[in-house]
Amino acid sequence: MAERTNSLEEKSRLVSAFKERQSSKNLLSCENSDRDARFHRTETDFSNLFARDLLPAKNGEEQTVQFLLEVVDILLNYVRKTFDRSTKVLDFHHPHQLLEGMEGFNLELSDHPESLEQILVDCRDTLKYGVRTGHPRFFNQLSSGLDIIGLAGEWLTSTANTNMFTYEIAPVFVLMEQITLKKMREMIGWSSKDGDGIFSPGGAISNMYGIMAARYKYFPEVKTKGMVAVPKLVLFTSEHSHYSIKKAGAALGFGTDNVILIKCNERGKIIPADLEAKILEAKQKGYVPLYVNATAGTTVYGAFDPIQEIADICEKYNLWLHVDVSTVIHRAAQFLQGVEAALFYDLPQLLPTLQLAFSAHQNSFSSSLVTNQPLMTDTAQRPGSCASFRANSVTWNPHKLMGVLLQCSAILVREKGILQGCNQMCAGYLFQPDKQYDVSYDTGDKAIQCGRHVDIFKFWLMWKAKGTVGFENQINKCLELAEYLYAKIKNREEFEMVFDGEVAPKIKALMMESGTTMVGYQPQGDKANFFRMVISNPGATQSDIDFLVEEIERLGQDL
Amino acid sequence: MAERTNSLEEKSRLVSAFKERQSSKNLLSCENSDRDARFHRTETDFSNLFARDLLPAKNGEEQTVQFLLEVVDILLNYVRKTFDRSTKVLDFHHPHQLLEGMEGFNLELSDHPESLEQILVDCRDTLKYGVRTGHPRFFNQLSSGLDIIGLAGEWLTSTANTNMFTYEIAPVFVLMEQITLKKMREMIGWSSKDGDGIFSPGGAISNMYGIMAARYKYFPEVKTKGMVAVPKLVLFTSEHSHYSIKKAGAALGFGTDNVILIKCNERGKIIPADLEAKILEAKQKGYVPLYVNATAGTTVYGAFDPIQEIADICEKYNLWLHVDVSTVIHRAAQFLQGVEAALFYDLPQLLPTLQLAFSAHQNSFSSSLVTNQPLMTDTAQRPGSCASFRANSVTWNPHKLMGVLLQCSAILVREKGILQGCNQMCAGYLFQPDKQYDVSYDTGDKAIQCGRHVDIFKFWLMWKAKGTVGFENQINKCLELAEYLYAKIKNREEFEMVFDGEVAPKIKALMMESGTTMVGYQPQGDKANFFRMVISNPGATQSDIDFLVEEIERLGQDL
Repeated sequence: MAERTNSLEEKSRLVSAFKERQSSKNLLSCENSDRDARFHRTETDFSNLFARDLLPAKNGEEQTVQFLLEVVDILLNYVRKTFDRSTKVLDFHHPHQLLEGMEGFNLELSDHPESLEQILVDCRDTLKYGVRTGHPRFFNQLSSGLDIIGLAGEWLTSTANTNMFTYEIAPVFVLMEQITLKKMREMIGWSSKDGDGIFSPGGAISNMYGIMAARYKYFPEVKTKGMVAVPKLVLFTSEHSHYSIKKAGAALGFGTDNVILIKCNERGKIIPADLEAKILEAKQKGYVPLYVNATAGTTVYGAFDPIQEIADICEKYNLWLHVDVSTVIHRAAQFLQGVEAALFYDLPQLLPTLQLAFSAHQNSFSSSLVTNQPLMTDTAQRPGSCASFRANSVTWNPHKLMGVLLQCSAILVREKGILQGCNQMCAGYLFQPDKQYDVSYDTGDKAIQCGRHVDIFKFWLMWKAKGTVGFENQINKCLELAEYLYAKIKNREEFEMVFDGEVAPKIKALMMESGTTMVGYQPQGDKANFFRMVISNPGATQSDIDFLVEEIERLGQDL
Repeated sequence: MAERTNSLEEKSRLVSAFKERQSSKNLLSCENSDRDARFHRTETDFSNLFARDLLPAKNGEEQTVQFLLEVVDILLNYVRKTFDRSTKVLDFHHPHQLLEGMEGFNLELSDHPESLEQILVDCRDTLKYGVRTGHPRFFNQLSSGLDIIGLAGEWLTSTANTNMFTYEIAPVFVLMEQITLKKMREMIGWSSKDGDGIFSPGGAISNMYGIMAARYKYFPEVKTKGMVAVPKLVLFTSEHSHYSIKKAGAALGFGTDNVILIKCNERGKIIPADLEAKILEAKQKGYVPLYVNATAGTTVYGAFDPIQEIADICEKYNLWLHVDVSTVIHRAAQFLQGVEAALFYDLPQLLPTLQLAFSAHQNSFSSSLVTNQPLMTDTAQRPGSCASFRANSVTWNPHKLMGVLLQCSAILVREKGILQGCNQMCAGYLFQPDKQYDVSYDTGDKAIQCGRHVDIFKFWLMWKAKGTVGFENQINKCLELAEYLYAKIKNREEFEMVFDGEVAPKIKALMMESGTTMVGYQPQGDKANFFRMVISNPGATQSDIDFLVEEIERLGQDL
C-alpha cells in the first residue's frame, strides 16, 4: 500500500512537471467554451440520405441531428402509447408470419444499404410488432414498466458507449458502480467498509458468481487445478429455486446431479430439517457440502426460505450461504410500523404471485400478511445501521421490482478480495500496474467477462431522481395492488372454481392474440398450469387489475 | 416435428375460433389510428419537477416529452463534440478527485429525490468527466467510434426494454438474431442450414460458450455428473491468445494449469509443431486433449494463427477447434482482387497493432502485406458460397472492428443442438411447451443466462443501413489508415530509436492528463512496454494519425 502511494505520488509529480508546459501548448478544451446548441427539427428528406452521410462524414452534422431527432420522435410516440390504455400490449404474429414479411417489413439483410427513410420505417415496424413491456397491463415478467429516468439513463449510456473494465475509459461509471454497490451492501446490513460486488449481465450470471466465490473461498486451488483436484463438492438449493442454480452447477463443472434439491413445504419454503438431512447424507456418501442457496422470493410462489434457520445450518456445517433475492427488493420501514431500517420482506413477491386458477392455494397468502420474516438477524435496529446479514453472497436484480431497465443485476459478496482472487488473470494489455492512477479502481479482474456493459448509470440516475424513498413508494404501490388483487380474487366466484389444468395455456393464447394484456403461466410440481401474476409494473393501477381479471374471465368463459 | 405441426394447427384453430368474437369486442388497436405526434421543445422549468411527475403519472405526458427532449439535446451536443477535433478526448481526473465532487457533481446517493433540473445537470456532468470513445483520436480500445445508426438502434432497444429469452416478449428481436446469425455462419463458410449461435455479453463469455460446447459434445455426461465424472481434460491455446480462455478454464472447472499454452513464433503465431508435441505430451501423461483455441487476430500483435495446420492437427487427434476472431471482421474481396467471397484476412488486426516504440518489431509487418492467410479451406470460391470453414465454433465480436456499439458479441457453433443440449434446463415458468406458437424460437435454453439483453437490434439496423458493402468500406478505411501509419512510422527517425522500456507508461500518463488522444500500451513476453495501436475507429482520418504520432513525440521529447 505504501508502495502504491509512493508510486502515485511520483506519477503526480511527473504529471505536474509537464502540466504547465502542456497547458500552454494545449488549446483544446473538453467542456468547450461555446454554449450547447439547442436543436430543432426541420423537414428533412431522408429518402436520398444514407448512413454514409451521417457523422463522421464531412458536413454530416445537420443530417445526423435531424436523423436522430426523427428517431426520437418515433420513440416518444412509442413511449406515449406505452402508457395509453387504449392501445394493445402487443399485436401478435407467428414467427412464420413475421419472417414472410409484414407489409414491407423485411427482416433479411442485404449487401446494399437502405436509405435513412427506410431505416426509420424499419424502426417504426420493429416497435409495431414488438411487445410493450411498459404497458400498464403487461404482467408477464418481473421486468416490466418503462421508467422514464431509467430510459434517459440508458440513452446516455449508449451514447457514451464505453466499457466498465477500467477506470481509464469509464471513470465516472466505475465510481458510480462502487458507490451504489456500497449502498446496496449497507442495505443488506453488511459493514459498509467490507465487502465487494459487481454488476453482471443478469441474475443467472450473478448466481453463477456466488457459486464461484464459494468454491474459491474454500478451495482456492480449483482456479489452477480444476475440479478434479478438489473433493467431490455438492450444492444445495430448494426445489422451488430458480433454474439458474442448476445451470451454473452444470457450467462450472459440478454437474446438475450434484445440485441437491431440498424439499419445500406447501408454501414453497425450504424445510430446514430436509436441508440438514441432505447435508448429512451427502457427507456420509463422501461428498463435501459447499454451498446453500436460499431464495428470498421464489420465482413462482414468491416464497421466502427461512434464512435464519438456514444460516444456522450453514454455520454449523461451515457452508457458504448465498441468498438469491433476484426477484425482490429492499423495502423500507413504513409498512412494518416503526422499524426504521432496511428489511427484506416476505410480502412483495409472495402476494403478486397469485395462482389465479387454484383456490386451493389461496389460503396460503392470507398467512403471509401476518408472518413476515425479515432477513436481518438484528430486528431491533437503529436507523441506518442494520446488523449483520448472514449471507456470504447475495444476488440482487434492480431490473425487477425496482423497475430499472434491462439489464441491471448485481452480485454482492461479504468478503472483499474473493471476486478478484477468483477471476483475476492480470491481462497485461488492460490492467497495467504502472498506470498513472490508483489501479484498484479497475474492475475487470473481478469479472468473468472482459468487456462489460455499463449497467450502472440508469440505476444510479433513477436513485438520484427518486431517492430511496421514491423506490419505496413505487414498491409499496405494487404491494398495495397485489393486496387489492388478492382481495378481489378471494371474493370472486369465478376464480374459486378449479379449472381444467389446460385452461391457462388456452386463455394465454387468446390473450396474446387479443393483445390486451399479458400474464405468465406455468405448472408447478403436481399442480397443473396456473397464472403467475406479477405485479412489478409501476404503471399499473387498480383499473388494470380489474381489467386483467375481467379479461381472464372473458377469454375463459367459453372454454 | 409432425406433432408440433399438429399442435400448432390445433392452436391456430382454437385461436381462429375465438378471433371473430374477440375482434367484435376488442376496440383496441396496436398501431393506433391517430397519427404520430411531432414533438417540439418548449421552455420548461425543471427545477420544480421530479421523477414522480413523469409518466406513468397522471398528466405526465408533456413533462415526459420535454424532459426526454432536454436529455436528447444534451446527447446531441455530446455527439457533435465527439466528432469535433477541437475538443479533448477526455478531461482526466483521479478517482479521489471525482469522489470528492467536482464543482457540484456529487456521486453519492441520497434518500430524497433530486429535481429534474439537477438530474439534467448530472447527465451533463457524467458526460463531461467521461471519455469520448467515439472521438477520432481515441485509439485506446478495439471498441471505438460512435456509429450513429447503431446509436439510434440502441436508443430504440432501451425504449423497447425487453428480453431475448422468449419469442413471446421479443418476437422481432428473436427473429433478427436468427437471421443475422445465419448470415454470419454463411460468411464463415458453414452451410446455411446447419449451425447455431447466440449473442452473448462479450467475447469472453462467447469464448466460454465455445469451451462448454466442446466439453458437452465429447462428454455430455459432464452436464449431470460434473468434471469428476469425465477424464482429466486439457485445453490448448497460444501464449498470445486472449486471457478469457484461461478465465473460462478456471470458471468451468478445468483449472488454468490445464489450459496449456502453445509457443508462438516471433510474429505471435502458434507453432503447429509445438501444438502437436504438447498434445502428445498431455496424452502420455494421461490427460485427454479436448479443445484448441486458434486466434485470428491476437489481442496485442494482431497475429493470425495458422488455422489450416491447426485444423489438420485437430482432425488428426479428434479435438474441437474454436477460432477466436473477436478482434477481427469479415472483410470482402476487393482488397484481394478477384476473390469474390467472404474472407478472414491477415491484415486488419495485424497492421493496426503497431508497436510504435520498438523498431525491432516493425519488420514483421511488411511481410504481412504479402502473406495473407484466408481462414477458408476453399479459396477457389464461387461468390456467395464459401466452402467449409473448419472450426467447430467461432467467437465474433461485431462491437470491435465493425464498430457496433457495446455490447455485441456472438458465439457461432457449427453443429446444431449442442448449445441447447448443454444449457437446457426447461424452466417451466418461461419455456412452456404448450405455448400457442412454435417454441423452437425461444432462445433461453441455449444460454447460460436467464434474462438476456437485446444486443442484436443495433447490429441488424447498421447492417440494413450500410449493407455488407458499407461494412467493407468502413473496414477498408481502417486498413488504409493502418498502412499509412506503418509507412509513416517506418520513415521516421524518432520511432526507430529503442526507447527506454518505461517510456510508454510515462507518455500515456501525460496523454491522459492532456486529454488530446488515447492509445493503449502493454509489455509482451520479454519486451518492455510499447504502444498497442488500434485503428478501428471509423471517424479517424490520416490527420488523426499524424496528430497521434506528433503527440507521442511531443509528450516524449523531454523524457
